[in-house]
Amino acid sequence: MNAPAGPQDHIYKILELVGSSDKSIEDAIENAITRASKTIREMKWFEVVQTRGHIENGKVGHYQVALRVGFTLEE
Amino acid sequence: MNAPAGPQDHIYKILELVGSSDKSIEDAIENAITRASKTIREMKWFEVVQTRGHIENGKVGHYQVALRVGFTLEE
Amino acid sequence: MNAPAGPQDHIYKILELVGSSDKSIEDAIENAITRASKTIREMKWFEVVQTRGHIENGKVGHYQVALRVGFTLEE
Amino acid sequence: MNAPAGPQDHIYKILELVGSSDKSIEDAIENAITRASKTIREMKWFEVVQTRGHIENGKVGHYQVALRVGFTLEE
Amino acid sequence: MNAPAGPQDHIYKILELVGSSDKSIEDAIENAITRASKTIREMKWFEVVQTRGHIENGKVGHYQVALRVGFTLEE
Amino acid sequence: MNAPAGPQDHIYKILELVGSSDKSIEDAIENAITRASKTIREMKWFEVVQTRGHIENGKVGHYQVALRVGFTLEE
Amino acid sequence: MNAPAGPQDHIYKILELVGSSDKSIEDAIENAITRASKTIREMKWFEVVQTRGHIENGKVGHYQVALRVGFTLEE
Amino acid sequence: MNAPAGPQDHIYKILELVGSSDKSIEDAIENAITRASKTIREMKWFEVVQTRGHIENGKVGHYQVALRVGFTLEE
Amino acid sequence: MNAPAGPQDHIYKILELVGSSDKSIEDAIENAITRASKTIREMKWFEVVQTRGHIENGKVGHYQVALRVGFTLEE
Amino acid sequence: MNAPAGPQDHIYKILELVGSSDKSIEDAIENAITRASKTIREMKWFEVVQTRGHIENGKVGHYQVALRVGFTLEE
Amino acid sequence: MNAPAGPQDHIYKILELVGSSDKSIEDAIENAITRASKTIREMKWFEVVQTRGHIENGKVGHYQVALRVGFTLEE
Amino acid sequence: MNAPAGPQDHIYKILELVGSSDKSIEDAIENAITRASKTIREMKWFEVVQTRGHIENGKVGHYQVALRVGFTLEE
Repeated sequence: MNAPAGPQDHIYKILELVGSSDKSIEDAIENAITRASKTIREMKWFEVVQTRGHIENGKVGHYQVALRVGFTLEE
Repeated sequence: MNAPAGPQDHIYKILELVGSSDKSIEDAIENAITRASKTIREMKWFEVVQTRGHIENGKVGHYQVALRVGFTLEE
Repeated sequence: MNAPAGPQDHIYKILELVGSSDKSIEDAIENAITRASKTIREMKWFEVVQTRGHIENGKVGHYQVALRVGFTLEE
Repeated sequence: MNAPAGPQDHIYKILELVGSSDKSIEDAIENAITRASKTIREMKWFEVVQTRGHIENGKVGHYQVALRVGFTLEE
Repeated sequence: MNAPAGPQDHIYKILELVGSSDKSIEDAIENAITRASKTIREMKWFEVVQTRGHIENGKVGHYQVALRVGFTLEE
Repeated sequence: MNAPAGPQDHIYKILELVGSSDKSIEDAIENAITRASKTIREMKWFEVVQTRGHIENGKVGHYQVALRVGFTLEE
Repeated sequence: MNAPAGPQDHIYKILELVGSSDKSIEDAIENAITRASKTIREMKWFEVVQTRGHIENGKVGHYQVALRVGFTLEE
Repeated sequence: MNAPAGPQDHIYKILELVGSSDKSIEDAIENAITRASKTIREMKWFEVVQTRGHIENGKVGHYQVALRVGFTLEE
Repeated sequence: MNAPAGPQDHIYKILELVGSSDKSIEDAIENAITRASKTIREMKWFEVVQTRGHIENGKVGHYQVALRVGFTLEE
Repeated sequence: MNAPAGPQDHIYKILELVGSSDKSIEDAIENAITRASKTIREMKWFEVVQTRGHIENGKVGHYQVALRVGFTLEE
Repeated sequence: MNAPAGPQDHIYKILELVGSSDKSIEDAIENAITRASKTIREMKWFEVVQTRGHIENGKVGHYQVALRVGFTLEE
Repeated sequence: MNAPAGPQDHIYKILELVGSSDKSIEDAIENAITRASKTIREMKWFEVVQTRGHIENGKVGHYQVALRVGFTLEE
């Protein structure tokens, strides 16, 4: 859904991650990306694949969000 | 997407709910689960099936989130 | 997922939009609908089709949410 | 696909049914809803999930239509 | 699913509509197409995307059928 | 969606057909099955895969319904 | 996928269950159906929706199989 | 999911079958393939499309497995 | 996606084929259709279902394209 | 699948088109985009939704490719 | 489909594998997981994505089962 | 879609890549595989998951093709 930028010959590798948070869906996404950024540097985009969560005592315990994350192989 | 816990022979029944909220997607999820917890006690997990909403006067009036909710039959 | 209201013979046209925001998924939805409301008046409901986003420096740069939006043709 | 109506905080529960008829697809839908209305009062909408049927002597014996039916929990 | 006809270089644009009727699925399709034909002339084919409906007093209140409609841009 | 009947060791072969009619969806289904019954005798069930149609002069010209049809190999 | 049997006007209700077993996929299916048969008598068919499982110490700990189960409402 | 073998210009035709067994999912697959091998010789691979079954007296009566089967046209 | 042509009462049968080529996706499609035309005369349209291929020595060895092909039964 | 570029607050509208060509899939894509560019200026990306075609005399008569095309609303 | 266990902030990475066996579907799953456990220690769950197989001399030669496998990044 | 070859006990790992090219879909596939072959040796097959592209000045700027690529773990 994005406008192009600069040279277009990137090859992307796609990684699938699941992040979790007891706060929000956005926070679960951020947690997954922050953790992955420790070992993968050139992450460029993500796509939400599934949103799930645990229920504890009749409330949402935490959210779990599965992401496909694209990163370039050229760095 | 979850780690196992204790004895593994649970049978789950799955229920589908739609919750709504004028605040956020997370709040619509919580409203559905809170309402269902009045009659179902052992809810364990949920999965978001669809996210929709109403538009009123060119703004989001409220969100509607459809969930599949799993609960154990052993209690 | 909605209760009916008044005369039922509406014909809807469906439009697909992508909104973005650096704050939240809900804000990306609102941005798309606010922008579209400048030219389309009778928008009634939306459905989230895809949730994606850009990653910048190991964090979410902004969210992109694709919506199907229904509006009546009778105005 | 519907316009909103009155207070928006309904929680819906979704039920899946299969109705059958030797007349038409619409009649199979009506049969399922009529039968379910004996025990569930506040059904609000349905969605066709699958349309199948039996063949007998080289003709359609009867139609079978699977529906997801939403009803409110607030009655 | 169709046999070809005459020159083959048509470009189609696809429009998504929802029609409704309290009579039948076919009537909801016709209503959507009739309404759209007021402003779009060269509609050529449709595909049913979803069949839903409202329930009123334990009966089908009306059907709602979502269609993708293709029309040529060359006229 | 069907109750079982007698010996259960049938092997089914599945055939995909498209029937058409200018009257109704049900009539397009019947036309496909009637035509196929000239060469295949033990057809048992069908499933609607897709419902489409042609538009002529702003009206439905005819319906086209794609079916998967199951028949036994034991005759 | 089944041949018809006797009167065809059954209305089915569909229930979704998850069964588990440390032996096999078939055993997980049986466990779900056996457990459900304590409270639901007229179950007629099932369809496997998803097959998952837990991994413990580098081996399959147990299988989890999600089923849609159809039962008649006429008893 | 397979490694290639020898000359690569095969044209495959795909056939869809449903096999059944009261023993296991694997046995239902074998039954379908064994039956089809009476008339089709060069079957090369299969893919499971759906796994269903009948329930009798609260137990699995038999499994029904739908397969897509590929065979070469060159023999 | 096609404009209609002449009498509309055709019944189509759908066949699924896989063609292969070491040149291009289009050539794999042509190979499948050319081979099938030896025994089936009235093929009218195709739809690409899946595009795959083999890799040999770090290059595309050949493409494999699965097609659904519709042909009329009236000849 | 794309790297971001400049200000990120674009709202996209998505249009669905079908292009055709008797040469290749790529040419059908180009034809659809060229034709649409006469009236829509800020098209940014496309996604192939379906690839089909007509068969004439046992050969591919022409390809038909359905595209979702995104363009910005801000120009 | 699982009950939660202990601290909930795990980030999972998902890996896709294909295992094979000439014995059973379960054995193909075990083979994939056993092989992967040589290099990946904290695998927690799997999900079956596709079940296929080879046919040799009119019998199942071996099963091939594609799995998505989740493992924690925290070890 | 492939004929088997030699010993059948391979375990495959699946990798997802996106290749791009301003020439053709086939060239984008080749670019992804060529780049990946620098670090992964035993790639055996691929499957096209999505075909997209950028539009620049009313023309296709370049194609982007997402692939699932299978390679053996036994080398």
